[in-house]
Amino acid sequence: MLSKNQIKYINSLQIKKYRQQHQSFVVEGAKSVVELLASDYEVETVFATSDFQQQHQSTLAARPVALETVTLAELEKVGSFQTNDSCLAVAKTKENRFLCAGPGEYALLLDDVRDPGNLGTILRIADWYGITKIICSESTTDLYNPKVVAASKGSFTRIQTYYTDLPAFFRQQKEGTAVVGAFLRGESLYDFRFPAQGGYLVMGNESQGIGGAVEAFVTHRVTIPRFGGAESLNVGIATAVLCDNLRRQLHKG
Amino acid sequence: MLSKNQIKYINSLQIKKYRQQHQSFVVEGAKSVVELLASDYEVETVFATSDFQQQHQSTLAARPVALETVTLAELEKVGSFQTNDSCLAVAKTKENRFLCAGPGEYALLLDDVRDPGNLGTILRIADWYGITKIICSESTTDLYNPKVVAASKGSFTRIQTYYTDLPAFFRQQKEGTAVVGAFLRGESLYDFRFPAQGGYLVMGNESQGIGGAVEAFVTHRVTIPRFGGAESLNVGIATAVLCDNLRRQLHKG
Repeated sequence: MLSKNQIKYINSLQIKKYRQQHQSFVVEGAKSVVELLASDYEVETVFATSDFQQQHQSTLAARPVALETVTLAELEKVGSFQTNDSCLAVAKTKENRFLCAGPGEYALLLDDVRDPGNLGTILRIADWYGITKIICSESTTDLYNPKVVAASKGSFTRIQTYYTDLPAFFRQQKEGTAVVGAFLRGESLYDFRFPAQGGYLVMGNESQGIGGAVEAFVTHRVTIPRFGGAESLNVGIATAVLCDNLRRQLHKG
Repeated sequence: MLSKNQIKYINSLQIKKYRQQHQSFVVEGAKSVVELLASDYEVETVFATSDFQQQHQSTLAARPVALETVTLAELEKVGSFQTNDSCLAVAKTKENRFLCAGPGEYALLLDDVRDPGNLGTILRIADWYGITKIICSESTTDLYNPKVVAASKGSFTRIQTYYTDLPAFFRQQKEGTAVVGAFLRGESLYDFRFPAQGGYLVMGNESQGIGGAVEAFVTHRVTIPRFGGAESLNVGIATAVLCDNLRRQLHKG
């Protein structure tokens, strides 16, 4: 049974200000909650139907958490559920800790990616391609936005993020770090060799691309070759193609 | 000024039954309408603000169409506009004509892709990579769904589609045609050579993948190599990665 205060609290976490105030966020849907329970996130409360609890007995037993039994009808009143689902959890956000690419490693770097669906998709892609660090401009949409969490399909649990002022971040980087930016006019990705020392794959805003302040730090401009009439690719799609070419090159040598 | 009947007519085109009955569909937004006007689609009526008409004088002059001046407030009442936009058009759907891949050509083949956003994204990706033909199972979402048209960002004007019974379609194909299917367990895409004779890239349903009836015709099973923890990639993302690997191979030889 959800109390009025619980409903109010969960709904407040739709809004960034309240997520920051409570240092908490909402994870919706059975699959995402199961991944949350398997992660190192601190879990506040799991609100689940008795069906969910039966189906996931061993997962719940492996990790004792505050568990509240609710009905589907109650779950529909909270969160941003689009479809009936059997579970919702509230978890603690992680501290915004400094991150950078290690030697030979590539991290993603997002300059002002605004759409929550795009950020969630990018987390899922990074997770598929084994890229575990994402550095985000402060204007990039919040990782803990429920739409980001939902679109990441559980991948948010395996990716580390760090929100920071990107020009300041670049000034702290070692000389020789590769900063590979995706532009509409650059070297063909098919002829490009990702430098072996590692560095960053920079993706820009949905309509503006990479901003001037970040562009100044880009060492390699690459372009996904185009063969038809479309003007551009969505930033999620472009991220996948870049990550795929990076991995393919490492695989092929 | 939009009449009650016009509003009713435009809104009815949200629904497939009425699109089929009227053989008409709706194109929303300035960019998409401009691409529509540059295409070979028959345009019924353009409903546009006077701002749009001023900005696109030459486009409108180059192609005389029935033009009605409306206000932003009127446009908000029709279609599925998410944001204010200055234009909406009604166009005639095209006949569902037989299509197949020519010698050395690859066409996309969609088995039960249900999400309109995914189909729109796939149209845009095909258009970027110069793939001009898409064969769809009858259960694949309708090309003329307004969400498909919107997500394609104008690319719907440059892609030919053909909805058909896929097993029957395969039985008409020449022997030796390559049918490359994306599966979670197949040959690594990085080691795979797309056969030079051309054929089909088959993408499956969002949750079920490629169905058994279509799988029976697949000649090559490929997998996008995975390096991290995500269970799967979205069908749009997977389509982009396959198309990119196809083009890259043709480029590199």
